[in-house]
Amino acid sequence: MQHCIEEILENCRRYTLDGEVASYIPELSKANREEIGIYVATEDGDFFAGDWEKPFTIQSIAKTIFLMLAAKDNGIDFVKAHVGVEATGKSFNAIDYAEPLLLREHINPMVNIGAIAVCGMVKAVSNEERFQRLMTFSRRIMENDELQIDEEVYASEKKTGNKNRALAYLLKNSDMIYGSVEELLDVYFAMCSLKVNCRDLARMALVLAHHGKNVHTGEQVIPEEDAVFMNAVLTTSGMYDGSGEFATTVGIPAKSGVGGGIMADCPGRMGIGIYSPALDKKGNSVAGIRMLEVLSKSQKLSIF
Amino acid sequence: MQHCIEEILENCRRYTLDGEVASYIPELSKANREEIGIYVATEDGDFFAGDWEKPFTIQSIAKTIFLMLAAKDNGIDFVKAHVGVEATGKSFNAIDYAEPLLLREHINPMVNIGAIAVCGMVKAVSNEERFQRLMTFSRRIMENDELQIDEEVYASEKKTGNKNRALAYLLKNSDMIYGSVEELLDVYFAMCSLKVNCRDLARMALVLAHHGKNVHTGEQVIPEEDAVFMNAVLTTSGMYDGSGEFATTVGIPAKSGVGGGIMADCPGRMGIGIYSPALDKKGNSVAGIRMLEVLSKSQKLSIF
Amino acid sequence: MQHCIEEILENCRRYTLDGEVASYIPELSKANREEIGIYVATEDGDFFAGDWEKPFTIQSIAKTIFLMLAAKDNGIDFVKAHVGVEATGKSFNAIDYAEPLLLREHINPMVNIGAIAVCGMVKAVSNEERFQRLMTFSRRIMENDELQIDEEVYASEKKTGNKNRALAYLLKNSDMIYGSVEELLDVYFAMCSLKVNCRDLARMALVLAHHGKNVHTGEQVIPEEDAVFMNAVLTTSGMYDGSGEFATTVGIPAKSGVGGGIMADCPGRMGIGIYSPALDKKGNSVAGIRMLEVLSKSQKLSIF
Amino acid sequence: MQHCIEEILENCRRYTLDGEVASYIPELSKANREEIGIYVATEDGDFFAGDWEKPFTIQSIAKTIFLMLAAKDNGIDFVKAHVGVEATGKSFNAIDYAEPLLLREHINPMVNIGAIAVCGMVKAVSNEERFQRLMTFSRRIMENDELQIDEEVYASEKKTGNKNRALAYLLKNSDMIYGSVEELLDVYFAMCSLKVNCRDLARMALVLAHHGKNVHTGEQVIPEEDAVFMNAVLTTSGMYDGSGEFATTVGIPAKSGVGGGIMADCPGRMGIGIYSPALDKKGNSVAGIRMLEVLSKSQKLSIF
Repeated sequence: MQHCIEEILENCRRYTLDGEVASYIPELSKANREEIGIYVATEDGDFFAGDWEKPFTIQSIAKTIFLMLAAKDNGIDFVKAHVGVEATGKSFNAIDYAEPLLLREHINPMVNIGAIAVCGMVKAVSNEERFQRLMTFSRRIMENDELQIDEEVYASEKKTGNKNRALAYLLKNSDMIYGSVEELLDVYFAMCSLKVNCRDLARMALVLAHHGKNVHTGEQVIPEEDAVFMNAVLTTSGMYDGSGEFATTVGIPAKSGVGGGIMADCPGRMGIGIYSPALDKKGNSVAGIRMLEVLSKSQKLSIF
Repeated sequence: MQHCIEEILENCRRYTLDGEVASYIPELSKANREEIGIYVATEDGDFFAGDWEKPFTIQSIAKTIFLMLAAKDNGIDFVKAHVGVEATGKSFNAIDYAEPLLLREHINPMVNIGAIAVCGMVKAVSNEERFQRLMTFSRRIMENDELQIDEEVYASEKKTGNKNRALAYLLKNSDMIYGSVEELLDVYFAMCSLKVNCRDLARMALVLAHHGKNVHTGEQVIPEEDAVFMNAVLTTSGMYDGSGEFATTVGIPAKSGVGGGIMADCPGRMGIGIYSPALDKKGNSVAGIRMLEVLSKSQKLSIF
Repeated sequence: MQHCIEEILENCRRYTLDGEVASYIPELSKANREEIGIYVATEDGDFFAGDWEKPFTIQSIAKTIFLMLAAKDNGIDFVKAHVGVEATGKSFNAIDYAEPLLLREHINPMVNIGAIAVCGMVKAVSNEERFQRLMTFSRRIMENDELQIDEEVYASEKKTGNKNRALAYLLKNSDMIYGSVEELLDVYFAMCSLKVNCRDLARMALVLAHHGKNVHTGEQVIPEEDAVFMNAVLTTSGMYDGSGEFATTVGIPAKSGVGGGIMADCPGRMGIGIYSPALDKKGNSVAGIRMLEVLSKSQKLSIF
Repeated sequence: MQHCIEEILENCRRYTLDGEVASYIPELSKANREEIGIYVATEDGDFFAGDWEKPFTIQSIAKTIFLMLAAKDNGIDFVKAHVGVEATGKSFNAIDYAEPLLLREHINPMVNIGAIAVCGMVKAVSNEERFQRLMTFSRRIMENDELQIDEEVYASEKKTGNKNRALAYLLKNSDMIYGSVEELLDVYFAMCSLKVNCRDLARMALVLAHHGKNVHTGEQVIPEEDAVFMNAVLTTSGMYDGSGEFATTVGIPAKSGVGGGIMADCPGRMGIGIYSPALDKKGNSVAGIRMLEVLSKSQKLSIF
């Protein structure tokens, strides 16, 4: 397996040249597009190759954290009563939402507007507490007490996040955010700026792969049904508007972020963390998808 | 003429029952739907009937003020380089704007998103100065030094204006607003809360009817070409997404507001101010449109 | 006036280089983009310059013929009960119509889908009779008994008109077309292939300018109120999604066609026919609009 | 298992009252909304309950037949080069397709417009041969040589299918259909009118569940990779715009039709055929989804 991982990484390294580093936040454009890393966590041991230790910001993969904690806090039914789970066919930062109201069915938790709403469902008496709970949960599910926010990226997100601000005020206008919009956005921007590496993502994925259970400690981190729910949502909408294509070529639940990360989990088998910041036009890591495709085919990982 | 005006008002009074008072801002819902007034200003004298002295908030008719002052400050070409003049087929507070960018062609100065952008084009070193200049201009074009903001409506707009906030952050995201979004929105909300009556609107309309000239004082308030430009814009998009229908049944440049007001001008002939707060589904005064239709037909006012 | 017309044409000739001849029908792409002609018809005499005698196909200007005859046959209210008169903000051959039904308010008679519906409202027991009545009406309003269909263009339209076919079947699906879709499309395609020159358009425009009356013969070709209605519709939506801009720069009712023609009328004053087949991206004649802009400014033709 | 199936059917019978029989085709509205049947096919034996023998028309489930045969004929890559596999967030008969062209990414093979395009990719020198090949393939994959078209439903589809006609002409306009549109639609309408019962669907599903292999005969009906591809597509978009919700509550690849059928397959385990014609607003069988949800939970069938 270790050899297999290394070979896949080397064979896919050239695809880093086919994408572009995200530029919509100035800080993200500083990433090195040639970096590439992979980490595979299994119950029996871990395998890794390349730049798996390099830190990067989690970006949209934080949407899975919002959804897991909001579902744990409120139950899946409550969450689904407010945001739907249909793929929308829209890009992650779409603004063309239908009037006269923001329909529940149009707000997917894996696109920005839905993720902001779900972030606000994490139980807390203040947004400061909400942030602390999200950090504690992140450290626990990734088994890494050292996790920190990247302050430069956070400042950059906060400064340039006017489209997210627009989306949040639309939610506010539809009574889908309680309390301060700006404070909730601070939590959202901060969590998207969480600094992680491939191992962090692989460990979170391993928990999902084992239906909520940390196989190292035996702890049930999230309820089994929540993990099944997460895997379904990730499969239908985890890779932005490239989710359908990804299902046909890779066939495992996964979530990508514009920082270049992908978290992917094979139910019952393994958790995978990927890093390669050169993105395709949909915002997914080009080399990352290629590595997962080859790995899926060679190890017969597809759930289909 | 005076008799004609009175008769029209009485005949159209019953249409006040066909509409609903605006409710999207709590303060507006306090209006008395049975009120109805009209004021006709001509070079040779004024005519009026009904509740023409009752004050109401100007609301979207302020969009004409933003556009006149922004055009005067920057020239029509500058304004048109940033906001288009095509009817969009969208309701006044639409949010479904096309990505990947806010296209100039989709932003009409007579719908909210365009009006906020145009408001920001009024020259000033601060938003406080911007507001003062707009107030001074309003008092001058309406020949009324007593004009004031309705503080209750302003507070209500500011508190509940989250959709306008969303639109403004979209503009900010496209670099179409400079400086503070919240401060600019304060100017926008305040000007929409300007308290006017039918005479105020009729006098502003008379200036447009005489191509920018105040026929009482001889002063050229806005350039002639700006007045022609305004009349064209009002004709194609002054009555929200009811502008086409209004052109076929009434046929004069006009702008409505959800406070129940309509300002209408007949080039070369007269300025008209209307008040009747019962609105149709597009946000236009039901009885107001009926009065204008009958007046247009009886006086042959249509420009077509 | 004759001298003025000639000078305007020469000064605007260079704009023929700024556009492209229509290519969506193979036959249209054979036009000579350097051709340019103008014809001004007034009660007191006619003026003309350039290629005013060159024949071209009427294309979308036929939409005015459909609307005039359908309104004459059924009354304006009947027509407006089925198709709206709001500018849609869409291009002439848009297909993205809202579900669950084709809303009357979204179907403007000056865009393809609305024009096909209106064509079907022309009273006839067969589509053959419908076509003959439209031809007779065209010859009468243009005072030209020689008018013929361009058979090559007609064949080309029929062969490649699959988008119009799609629009027609949408109408059929909403019960807005009775009888054979293909037969009605034949009428539509044939009438769009009507061969006219600048004088033909100018004479039709002169009838509209005199509110339905042929000033040469004294005949009331269409009712006065229909002519006023037409002028309103042309002003708000006659120049495709460039109508708002045209209103601000030229300010007269007009209809363009992708064959390079523009019919424009100045109420009470004159009818204008334009030909110059180099089009802008919206499908309007570039040099044609420029000639009208200069003419409007020099002769103070704007209705605003 | 047999007992389990019977119990599930009885417990879910009441949900037949929560839906409505399809009415958009007159013939479909004749269905008895109280009928309900289920058939489970496994390698080791079959189980069934209720009205599993009742025939009904396959409707949209035919889309899987088009896609399987087109992929077999041309390869998956060819098919995906013309139609995408992203969920569109649109209802099955949506018409609001984006201009200026029909983007591959907007055309999913599980919605009407994509299915018509894919139907046309089935190799044949004539549409008559195309139809015969589709029938032969259907009989083979369902192991039923008796399969026939329901002539009444076919006639009804053909007569009222103007929206599908519109979609087909849009495809034609984008060069995505070769040859006669009407003939291809005949094939499409006929195949949607294929008369099947629960066993037929279960057997087709069993082939997909065993990755293309008929476990009774040992024959590889479609290539293994095609079956994996089909399961991915069905998971992300097989249940119209209810696919995301279905993935979270049931979690198995499935395709529904407005005739009341659902074909569902559990990779490696079983094929399921469902019939219950009372539909929810998205066009899916209400009681059918409920039966699958209970079955999935009790037998732990979810792939997530």
